[in-house]
Amino acid sequence: MPMRSHYCGAVTEALIGQPVTLCGWVNRRRDHGGVIFIDLRDREGTVQVVCDPDRPQMFATAEHLRNEYCIQVRGVVRARPEGTVNDAIRSGKVEVLCHEIEVLNPSVTPPFQLDDDNLSETTRLTHRVLDLRRPYMQRNLMLRYRVAMETRRFLDAHGFIDIETPMLTRSTPEGARDYLVPSRVHDGMFYALPQSPQLFKQLLMVAGFDRYYQITKCFRDEDLRADRQPEFTQIDIETSFMTEQEIRDLFQGMIKTVFANTIGVDLGEFPVMTYAEAMARFGSDKPDLRVKLEFTELTDVMKDVEFKVFSGPANMPGGRVVALRVPGGAQMSRSEIDAYTEFVKIYGAKGLAWIKVNDLAAGRDGLQSPIVKNLHDAALQAVLQRSGARDGDLLFFGADKAKVVNDAIGALRVKIGHSAFGKANGLFEDRWAPLWVVDFPMFEYDEEERRWVAVHHPFTAPKDGHEDLMATDPGACLAKAYDMVLNGWELGGGSVRIHRADVQRKVFAALNIGEDEARAKFGFLLDALQYGAPPHGGLAFGLDRLVTLMTGAESIRDVIAFPKTQRAQCLLTHAPSPVDEKQLRELHIRLRNPQPA
Amino acid sequence: MPMRSHYCGAVTEALIGQPVTLCGWVNRRRDHGGVIFIDLRDREGTVQVVCDPDRPQMFATAEHLRNEYCIQVRGVVRARPEGTVNDAIRSGKVEVLCHEIEVLNPSVTPPFQLDDDNLSETTRLTHRVLDLRRPYMQRNLMLRYRVAMETRRFLDAHGFIDIETPMLTRSTPEGARDYLVPSRVHDGMFYALPQSPQLFKQLLMVAGFDRYYQITKCFRDEDLRADRQPEFTQIDIETSFMTEQEIRDLFQGMIKTVFANTIGVDLGEFPVMTYAEAMARFGSDKPDLRVKLEFTELTDVMKDVEFKVFSGPANMPGGRVVALRVPGGAQMSRSEIDAYTEFVKIYGAKGLAWIKVNDLAAGRDGLQSPIVKNLHDAALQAVLQRSGARDGDLLFFGADKAKVVNDAIGALRVKIGHSAFGKANGLFEDRWAPLWVVDFPMFEYDEEERRWVAVHHPFTAPKDGHEDLMATDPGACLAKAYDMVLNGWELGGGSVRIHRADVQRKVFAALNIGEDEARAKFGFLLDALQYGAPPHGGLAFGLDRLVTLMTGAESIRDVIAFPKTQRAQCLLTHAPSPVDEKQLRELHIRLRNPQPA
Repeated sequence: MPMRSHYCGAVTEALIGQPVTLCGWVNRRRDHGGVIFIDLRDREGTVQVVCDPDRPQMFATAEHLRNEYCIQVRGVVRARPEGTVNDAIRSGKVEVLCHEIEVLNPSVTPPFQLDDDNLSETTRLTHRVLDLRRPYMQRNLMLRYRVAMETRRFLDAHGFIDIETPMLTRSTPEGARDYLVPSRVHDGMFYALPQSPQLFKQLLMVAGFDRYYQITKCFRDEDLRADRQPEFTQIDIETSFMTEQEIRDLFQGMIKTVFANTIGVDLGEFPVMTYAEAMARFGSDKPDLRVKLEFTELTDVMKDVEFKVFSGPANMPGGRVVALRVPGGAQMSRSEIDAYTEFVKIYGAKGLAWIKVNDLAAGRDGLQSPIVKNLHDAALQAVLQRSGARDGDLLFFGADKAKVVNDAIGALRVKIGHSAFGKANGLFEDRWAPLWVVDFPMFEYDEEERRWVAVHHPFTAPKDGHEDLMATDPGACLAKAYDMVLNGWELGGGSVRIHRADVQRKVFAALNIGEDEARAKFGFLLDALQYGAPPHGGLAFGLDRLVTLMTGAESIRDVIAFPKTQRAQCLLTHAPSPVDEKQLRELHIRLRNPQPA
Repeated sequence: MPMRSHYCGAVTEALIGQPVTLCGWVNRRRDHGGVIFIDLRDREGTVQVVCDPDRPQMFATAEHLRNEYCIQVRGVVRARPEGTVNDAIRSGKVEVLCHEIEVLNPSVTPPFQLDDDNLSETTRLTHRVLDLRRPYMQRNLMLRYRVAMETRRFLDAHGFIDIETPMLTRSTPEGARDYLVPSRVHDGMFYALPQSPQLFKQLLMVAGFDRYYQITKCFRDEDLRADRQPEFTQIDIETSFMTEQEIRDLFQGMIKTVFANTIGVDLGEFPVMTYAEAMARFGSDKPDLRVKLEFTELTDVMKDVEFKVFSGPANMPGGRVVALRVPGGAQMSRSEIDAYTEFVKIYGAKGLAWIKVNDLAAGRDGLQSPIVKNLHDAALQAVLQRSGARDGDLLFFGADKAKVVNDAIGALRVKIGHSAFGKANGLFEDRWAPLWVVDFPMFEYDEEERRWVAVHHPFTAPKDGHEDLMATDPGACLAKAYDMVLNGWELGGGSVRIHRADVQRKVFAALNIGEDEARAKFGFLLDALQYGAPPHGGLAFGLDRLVTLMTGAESIRDVIAFPKTQRAQCLLTHAPSPVDEKQLRELHIRLRNPQPA
């Protein structure tokens, strides 16, 4: 005899008149007119259980039930009396007339009400098991599962096979900080947890597996930001014998399919934008296209203005001057503008110049601004014309090193777009806004290290015809690299890889990585490339981020069952924790700062 | 224009007359009668490409091709001339008349022939990428994928959802040795890599997820045996509100479905055997039922024989005396028997007594044996009757502590069954032999530590009615634990868990784990049980082992893309490896034995 016949949340009109056996948790108990009503909850939802006093033994049990008791109920499904139907839940047209109750397990009083929406994250993570009982978290993790499963179905249908790559691997010389694992067998040696399966998936292509995927944990020991975890999950994909265009088309199809099959959203066609265009128009390589604001390029016209704040950057190599036109922004108060000025300072901007366009017809008199007097007519004319300024607009300005301008004005653009002002003034379009950003540069110059570094990773292939630029003009060399962006988040990215050892050597040369260093670090990849490595490429999606976007969760931690805090701790199990001296001895390590016993 | 129109291995009669574009590797090139034949290989198989000299440019390219060159071929499919059909391959009825060849990437000469079946494992793991190109490894990893995917499909259809549990977790106090990960943020603290998601999956049941699964990596830092890896993959499952019987039925169905849908094998119904019966009949809790040999219990009849080798163990608490009847074994030579005597010593046996049954009708004179003279008539009579001895049989004997007898005679049983002799004499049935072993003991006595320890783990529920035995007679207390066994391998195992805190406390008491220790080690589980934890249970299957069995591979390493050696090394990437002093400093650790720089 099975312990349960149906899920609580799945008891519907179709079962009227039938006996059911339900298992679940007491979500709420109400005593009303001598009858006890129990909202019984399981992962599929709740159902109303009615306990009449005419079955005294059952009723006595019901009287002692409290929230979160785990119980088994036997009864018969019946239609709810007229006027008591609850259309908000799937079982809302029916109720279960209770014949028998068994308390499977009582519960002490929970530390919080499950329907309390104002819990601190510390409380939630400390009592994660109860937090996970909440329908919000149940829904999030169910959706996460469905996204992963739809992804697998799509990839399976397209001939991709899941191949597991090692978790205990070799410390990678480039990239973020590794998590290390001391070896017991090999004194003084360490494994590293993978930052990504990048090299292994390339090796699998060389091995001829042709189409690989894996939904796998990756690890980075970095200081955590709001949307980062020490371990995160990547949908990792690689394919041979496909062009960049074919790869993008296929995985655009995958993401579209996943959205359609899980949350019923049609993402439409994805616009394709070059990195150069994205930076020019939005100061970001992951622009949020829902925000209807764009940069106006002014570097060229500010070279000869008196205003040093503009002419300095305009004449500096790598400097940039832009405006951001905010339609309707002239109504902003001085304190609002001051708040935005403080905001851009987070991104390194020294200030935030502005012009309120009150009355274009009135010429300079119609412009309210602390800086207009410092701009000659031609410059001012260019500002107004290029930005398309109209009466009632506000223009913000950024002038600094390009990176500072892009970061600061790019962030300001998003901030204004998402603000109440932005939403009220039509600057924000509430839709799904996917795009591809393509043609990334191969290299960027690291001022601190005074050398070129790889923008993606050193295995990214240059665009056709750009091979020679690697030696002659690294900064102009573009890569077969692409990112998928959604609503201003990078959902995933990848590239066509280098499959020929001679091209790989040119990249190492451009990065100033010598033959010996290359051999020591990537010898096994270089070896593999020699044996007829196929043309290949791929990409990786961040599953945590994808699901966070899809659920509309506030934090990545809301789509992970047992996340770590921003201090990389698990509040539930208290990891990390001290370990025995014996364990350390076996691993041939000791603490630098031994703790008092 | 796609780089490829078809897989090489998928070019069949259906495509005759059609143009195709193929990509793959030169498996072999033959020059024959002025024509060049190329066997072009990809993951789906090979196809014959014919290069005629009437296209000189293409022919010139073909002349320079060598093994493992990666090439693209354009051509037209045609039927092979009569007499040249190759029925061994899918494309064997056709060939591709080549129009164009592009060398996508040349190859240096591989260090070995891909079709060499006598490669050392060191060679194979050092050049793993080439080793993986071999059809044997391609097939193994493809099957592994299909097994995992069929498992996911089955579980999905039964409402199980994949929920990821942490990789960076807390060091577990019971079980095998942990792999540790030093924390950078928390000086002196360590994460541990999970030995299994056991506690997390139980927490997910308490959280109401109802049906969980995960195909996930687990880690144990143990000295490696032939079938062990530092990291291994587990199909990990847990469910709420199902009885032991329901759980077994469901997952028997899962394994049957996976076998049927991947290798077309019907495993039939699984016999269910208690642990007690398995040990009595086969001396093993994972008996290989293909071997048609069984133990004969003799402990009771050997108590009063003169032969101390038998009477000693027969009278010792925990001693055991058994016979193993080998039909037709009387033909074994003395040297064969000597070899088996050496074999059982591996398992701690001091010797191997035997009787050859030459002629039962002749009484003692018909028995050839060094020990018969020491057995009185009643004992000898019992030996012959109970074992069902017939002329031509050989009886082997084990007498020692039960564990030694079970291990030694159990291994001997399998050894003889699998031997050429066993196979020739009908002692081995070549079939799939699954079974369930159930009713495991809750506890076994650890002689060294002089305390009871959990046979499975301390969260296993006792059989109904056995709760009180935990205090009064722990050795007699049976558990709701079950193992699935196939061909003598443990495929998986699990149990119904304890869902009530009071029962859990009784188990800790039986294990002599104090209240404080229990809190410190398992506080978060005990906490969770208080809040209406549901009845739950589950199991885990070893994916590596399952696939090894299904492929008939010799080693678990043949079903893992990038395995470690028995010294826990990756010969391809050279992990583990030394790391920088800076990395150690950041992790607040130092080496005990610093290496000379």
